[in-house]
Amino acid sequence: MRLHPATAALLAALLPLSSAYAAPSKPAPPSRDEAAAQLVGGALSDGRAFAWLQELTDSVGPRLSGSPGAAAAVAWASARLRAEGVKVWTEKVMVPHWVRGEESAAIVKAPAPEGLGMESAAWPPAPYPLALTALGGSIGTPPEGIEAEVVEARTLAEAAALGERAKGRIVLFQHEMSVAADYGRFAELRTKGAVEAAKVGAVAALVRSLSTASLRTPHTGAMRAAPIPGAALAAEDAMLLHRLLQRGPVRLRLKLGCRSEPDAESANVVFEVRGREKPDELVLLGAHLDSWDLAQGAIDDGAGTVAIMEAVRLASKLRAPPRRTLRGVLFMNEENGLKGGDAYAKAHGGERHVAAMEVDSGPYRPLSVRVRSGGPGADLLRPWLAPLAGLGAAEVSDGEAGGADLSPLTELAPLPLVRVELDGARYFDLHHSAADTLDKVKPQDLAQLTAAVAWTAWSLAEHPDTLAPPARPAPPPPSAVPAGK
Amino acid sequence: MRLHPATAALLAALLPLSSAYAAPSKPAPPSRDEAAAQLVGGALSDGRAFAWLQELTDSVGPRLSGSPGAAAAVAWASARLRAEGVKVWTEKVMVPHWVRGEESAAIVKAPAPEGLGMESAAWPPAPYPLALTALGGSIGTPPEGIEAEVVEARTLAEAAALGERAKGRIVLFQHEMSVAADYGRFAELRTKGAVEAAKVGAVAALVRSLSTASLRTPHTGAMRAAPIPGAALAAEDAMLLHRLLQRGPVRLRLKLGCRSEPDAESANVVFEVRGREKPDELVLLGAHLDSWDLAQGAIDDGAGTVAIMEAVRLASKLRAPPRRTLRGVLFMNEENGLKGGDAYAKAHGGERHVAAMEVDSGPYRPLSVRVRSGGPGADLLRPWLAPLAGLGAAEVSDGEAGGADLSPLTELAPLPLVRVELDGARYFDLHHSAADTLDKVKPQDLAQLTAAVAWTAWSLAEHPDTLAPPARPAPPPPSAVPAGK
Repeated sequence: MRLHPATAALLAALLPLSSAYAAPSKPAPPSRDEAAAQLVGGALSDGRAFAWLQELTDSVGPRLSGSPGAAAAVAWASARLRAEGVKVWTEKVMVPHWVRGEESAAIVKAPAPEGLGMESAAWPPAPYPLALTALGGSIGTPPEGIEAEVVEARTLAEAAALGERAKGRIVLFQHEMSVAADYGRFAELRTKGAVEAAKVGAVAALVRSLSTASLRTPHTGAMRAAPIPGAALAAEDAMLLHRLLQRGPVRLRLKLGCRSEPDAESANVVFEVRGREKPDELVLLGAHLDSWDLAQGAIDDGAGTVAIMEAVRLASKLRAPPRRTLRGVLFMNEENGLKGGDAYAKAHGGERHVAAMEVDSGPYRPLSVRVRSGGPGADLLRPWLAPLAGLGAAEVSDGEAGGADLSPLTELAPLPLVRVELDGARYFDLHHSAADTLDKVKPQDLAQLTAAVAWTAWSLAEHPDTLAPPARPAPPPPSAVPAGK
Repeated sequence: MRLHPATAALLAALLPLSSAYAAPSKPAPPSRDEAAAQLVGGALSDGRAFAWLQELTDSVGPRLSGSPGAAAAVAWASARLRAEGVKVWTEKVMVPHWVRGEESAAIVKAPAPEGLGMESAAWPPAPYPLALTALGGSIGTPPEGIEAEVVEARTLAEAAALGERAKGRIVLFQHEMSVAADYGRFAELRTKGAVEAAKVGAVAALVRSLSTASLRTPHTGAMRAAPIPGAALAAEDAMLLHRLLQRGPVRLRLKLGCRSEPDAESANVVFEVRGREKPDELVLLGAHLDSWDLAQGAIDDGAGTVAIMEAVRLASKLRAPPRRTLRGVLFMNEENGLKGGDAYAKAHGGERHVAAMEVDSGPYRPLSVRVRSGGPGADLLRPWLAPLAGLGAAEVSDGEAGGADLSPLTELAPLPLVRVELDGARYFDLHHSAADTLDKVKPQDLAQLTAAVAWTAWSLAEHPDTLAPPARPAPPPPSAVPAGK
């Protein structure tokens, strides 16, 4: 067939346009500068992260595994990514379904003021309510509650050494967490306190909240399965009990309505941009979609959730995908079981993950990038991170990286891990508390974090070379507390 | 009778000792330097203030008018002052007896995320609990609660202008309090909001907590008697409702178990050091012994309570009393009725108060002294305040002073008022909230505050001159909200 000359001219004129839609020839990949303009520039100027975080927190809200909120979060994230044209699917995960119920505690007996002859009066004059919240996974108390004296311990070993003095009592784990870096030191008091207290006959375990600020704010978190209830006290109330115990016996009443329902079906949300050259090599971006039940989960881990959604969306809008596949996973059940991480490792452990990055450190300004690999990983990545210099986040160093959701995968085989370090000094003011709400997130910080994540992830997916796996698996972070383990 | 020479010698030797107990001749009053050493030095080095504050907060605890805690506080303060040899008595006051009960609120309906076809699902996926606390004096809801849509107003006038749009709805009073100085501007939203909302047919009134920091912390406070319930929301939740209302209707469920019991008998605690020259001229030190029910009331007004107790104790230990009578009054019911202030004015309004100082601004470092008088009051006091220079608090100026408990007295006749200004920028982080606890008080700041109060009060009581009364009564402070007025 011969074309009429006018038709041929028309086709020639249309070709540059139509090729974007239908031409079989693939567009050239963007230059690094072009990609930076679209990823870093896009996240900063036209990013979806904060708007999506508002949907996730204000509309979906709390999303503890097994709750209606968690199911809504899976549906929302899938619909949101699909609406953006990102390839997305869900993968079934069976999760613990723990329910908080009503909870309360009060001081019902405490020492009288001294030297005033007022010992015969009731002290306190009325039960003094304590600001307390059950730890995730705790059993409840009987409906009428528990009433017992308190005894203190500052370490798990001190609790064990209480021996007979713990019997029939409530063990209160004290500590002096004051900065974010203390979390790792003291987290075991929350996760293992009840287990240890039960061994010496205690009837319940309390822990001073792991927090760096308090306005009478209890902070929950996972505890290992124990035969006695466990709960966190606001720092103020832990300090109060400490002061009272210097003067004499203190008796508490504790009612926890929490319970475990049968495991529930839930899902990880997986989404990706398929690599143009090495689609079977995966750069994994992880965050967790579940949150605690006390608040909106804006910082833990709504921020990470929307950052990786937006990083993959931005990459999907480039005129060609990166060399390797960039995959995002919104893990379910990071907070109280890691079942999402387990399920992902089981389903995808055989695939070739060349690098993984977990984003679960709040909505803060990025400071630098850290690489955990078997070789000079920082050197490999450094030349690529120049576009983050304007954010003050282009510094890259070798060091620890990882994350709870990645730990089941890295247990299978050591894996290069990358982490965007954040300015998170105030993270534990809010972490796991009712104060983890959207208003705490500065849109500008979230945009910068998203830009750093998007750029670092794309660099890993586009780089001609890959990082060498580290010699040994990453140590699990303190928040990685599989329920019942 | 003639004494044996040996007996006379013995008596002469004993005289300096025995004169302290029985000799009719009065000791010379201390010099200003001597008094400063004992008052300022005593408060700073050997003060009782913090130890007493610990008793009041940790042992007595919350002490809302009519509660067991308030009764215990009256007994404790009386016993404590008596144990120190200070002349103390109680004066009966009938007070409102408001009881909080159980309270809860939740968002039960809110707009769906847009553009995802998810409108048919339930939003929020589960009721979202709000951090809320009833305002003092509020009526309760029916036991099953109230369910209604929310409508916002930013001023009382805006609420009035809502007209039909408020009918059957919950009016939420929004504001943007960010610094302590905003309290005066916005306090009427709390005190009068429910009254105004009721006039346009609202079924309840909510107010964003009057606070300068929040970790999901609601702040209570008094409201005027209204036919509908009133409660405060944590700032986070007020902001959340504002965001949701931009997108569509929001429905809340509200349950308040609060109620007013019959008026209860309580008391002001009055204590004094009788003046050596002009015992009928009174320098009045006031603080309030009652607190809100949500916490220990350490800053409001435990700090003022122990500061004036200690100021009078220190003055009572001088080898001679000041020229005039120094009287302390621990008022009952400042928070929700001012009945203690009313009762004091009624009983003592005819006495000659030459100056009054209310100490109810928290436990903070003193900055300066302010005088409200009819003449150049600052000039009169300035030369006497040198002993406060070491605390950086010797500056004195003419300006506003006063306090809620003094307002019934100053309404009878204008009265010179003196105030120790404090570094209280963070006062409203804690004010009227569950976070008003002892750990927030720095012993050093409280000691300095006490020193400034003790010295200023003694100076007023010892000064050869008195301040001139101001021409008009002091305006009542924003916290002076007599119940039902």
